[in-house]
Amino acid sequence: MATISPFAPKHPPRLPSISGVRFATCAAGIRYPGRTDLLLALFDPGTSVAGVLTRSKTASAPVEWCRARLAHGMGRALVVNSGNANAFTGRRGRNAVKLTAEAAAAAAQCLEADIYLASTGVIGEPLDPAKFTGLLAGLAASAEPERFEEAARAIMTTDTYPKLATRQAEIEGVPVTINGIAKGAGMIAPDMATMLAFLFTDAAIEPGPLREILVPAANETFNAITIDGDTSTSDTLLLFATGTAASRGAPRIGLPHDPRLTSFRAALTEVLRDLAHQVVKDGEGATKFVTVRVNGAESPAAARAIARSIANSPLVKTAIAGEDPNWGRIVMAVGKAGEAADRDKLAIWLGEISVAREGEVDPSYREALGAAYMKRPEIAITVDVGVGKADATIWTCDLTSGYIAINADYRS
Amino acid sequence: MATISPFAPKHPPRLPSISGVRFATCAAGIRYPGRTDLLLALFDPGTSVAGVLTRSKTASAPVEWCRARLAHGMGRALVVNSGNANAFTGRRGRNAVKLTAEAAAAAAQCLEADIYLASTGVIGEPLDPAKFTGLLAGLAASAEPERFEEAARAIMTTDTYPKLATRQAEIEGVPVTINGIAKGAGMIAPDMATMLAFLFTDAAIEPGPLREILVPAANETFNAITIDGDTSTSDTLLLFATGTAASRGAPRIGLPHDPRLTSFRAALTEVLRDLAHQVVKDGEGATKFVTVRVNGAESPAAARAIARSIANSPLVKTAIAGEDPNWGRIVMAVGKAGEAADRDKLAIWLGEISVAREGEVDPSYREALGAAYMKRPEIAITVDVGVGKADATIWTCDLTSGYIAINADYRS
Repeated sequence: MATISPFAPKHPPRLPSISGVRFATCAAGIRYPGRTDLLLALFDPGTSVAGVLTRSKTASAPVEWCRARLAHGMGRALVVNSGNANAFTGRRGRNAVKLTAEAAAAAAQCLEADIYLASTGVIGEPLDPAKFTGLLAGLAASAEPERFEEAARAIMTTDTYPKLATRQAEIEGVPVTINGIAKGAGMIAPDMATMLAFLFTDAAIEPGPLREILVPAANETFNAITIDGDTSTSDTLLLFATGTAASRGAPRIGLPHDPRLTSFRAALTEVLRDLAHQVVKDGEGATKFVTVRVNGAESPAAARAIARSIANSPLVKTAIAGEDPNWGRIVMAVGKAGEAADRDKLAIWLGEISVAREGEVDPSYREALGAAYMKRPEIAITVDVGVGKADATIWTCDLTSGYIAINADYRS
Repeated sequence: MATISPFAPKHPPRLPSISGVRFATCAAGIRYPGRTDLLLALFDPGTSVAGVLTRSKTASAPVEWCRARLAHGMGRALVVNSGNANAFTGRRGRNAVKLTAEAAAAAAQCLEADIYLASTGVIGEPLDPAKFTGLLAGLAASAEPERFEEAARAIMTTDTYPKLATRQAEIEGVPVTINGIAKGAGMIAPDMATMLAFLFTDAAIEPGPLREILVPAANETFNAITIDGDTSTSDTLLLFATGTAASRGAPRIGLPHDPRLTSFRAALTEVLRDLAHQVVKDGEGATKFVTVRVNGAESPAAARAIARSIANSPLVKTAIAGEDPNWGRIVMAVGKAGEAADRDKLAIWLGEISVAREGEVDPSYREALGAAYMKRPEIAITVDVGVGKADATIWTCDLTSGYIAINADYRS
């Protein structure tokens, strides 16, 4: 259906195994026969979990299940299905979640409270858990550690390539690994947009500090990307820390501001940013990767609102698709954000090229310069709004006829 | 360039003349040779003016000029040019406005303070007023009353048809007329989106009450439409009341809540709604006219935010373009609005067809019903969010590959 993203890597990165994490996948026929649509991940006892979930007011049943489980923050298994989002399914949806968790707990020999769930696919259709609950015990028996690529492929829906990232960190001199897999918000009929990301580490960190580290890192990465401004009912980001590095001498961290977490915090942010950029680069119909930076704003929230206004503007996005240095549309998007901006101090750059300064076109700017710049696959737009010192960065892609073709096709 | 909108009327409505209003137009060569790009409207002494202007923080120089003039609320002439928006042009932009107003005041033999200006076209390029200031005296000498269609055509940029509307009202038994012309937010390279609307009436209403009537009427009409969620630097709505109906016995109204304004208020809202719908129907690439109604919200602002979230969602808009009754995307858009909504009480209708109720698909709903409904040129989406009693209506169009083609083309 969709063509492969021009940003797809030739080979996905090979991820090292993480002690205490095992995977198994299969084709359960949830919506399409023969398509791998079920992932089971198993974690050793003592695994901490932290998560960030969609803020949608119509969140799916599995999102609500995870929200409740994250309160205690321990986990033994994760079940992800594609083909059906189990969203807007009412009582039946809650029932399906309960039955899946029961079956997973039996398969993983743990408590239901230690099960995490995510679903992606069509919305509003009841999910029949009988299609896969019987498969979980077999999956648990066959789970193996080194299957990150297989796991990343199992959660794909309309992604054109599997998304994986890995970084090393050290905690008190002991090396630890952070691996991540993600699926994008690429939607294709009949599926519903969902961004899912699962991270795994052997670091030994209690649920409290794990959450304290994860939330700001997610805010400056996954929460700083936008493809079409739409928010899924199912967005789920979970970080599982098995703590097995303790057997190699890593300390168990119990406090969020422990200075021994500096390296881990940086590596986690890098893995999240790497995955978030991969999601943008695989946005539906995307041909350009765009970094929008806003400086000189009144507050970080204002900077972010202006950057989002630019990144979500259909006019800015179509201009980028057309390789048109149409900076007037950037001015428009700054103006419509509703945040403080000094029109007569506004400055705009395309990459390093000064396009406008002090509220007028830069006398040194030549359209040919801008036009040549816009031909690049990766574009940086920088705006200074001239009223303060706060800044923000948002990443997005262009808006092409490919997006329309994918989303306007009648569901088949 | 663009094909004619499928909603274009075969013949624009013929508008009656309004005593005290005269028009002249010409091709001044502001950007393209031979294209009518200049409109002068003249008003009899004693004409009141009220206006609603863009809330953009990067508003154009003519918008700022009008904002200052509206404080006293009297007007003798209106000059509108297309081809150049005189936006983001700094000091030179303010200068161009001043020179235009001086020339118009000389031509209309009035004070500069009684001149109103609007510009639409490319952004960020200096507007050279010398191209047209010398033409204004000649236009003033040749102005004639019955030229509404000519005036409506002169302000078009990428509109595919001229937009005109008229209604009659009565004030204390004396008939009065309200005529309006508008241009749409259809953008095409190299032009910048701008919505301009000018209304004319012979009613005798002081500036204060005129404004008090106009603002709420604009809020429920022009401020309730969206094509792509982008806001122009130049949006301008002006209402000129010549007061010439006083010679036929109409009273001069000085207070906003005067009950004799009931009929006028209703007729004004109808003219504005008529023009606003015409603007949506001529949206770039539009093939569907969509009414989004939200009921059961916590407050009118919440209802409006949810309706806008649905109307601006690229996923909802592309589904409509594809004639796909993809109500899951409507659920998503309700969820992302961030306003209170009870997922388990949510109800959705397509026209009269009940699609979902109590947070689940309606057992009586059949996809074939929804699919047949979506083939209509005019679609109504109604959502009840189940938490309160407030409602709102927003009008929009679909998002098609026509929109992308128009906006991603490199400016020629």
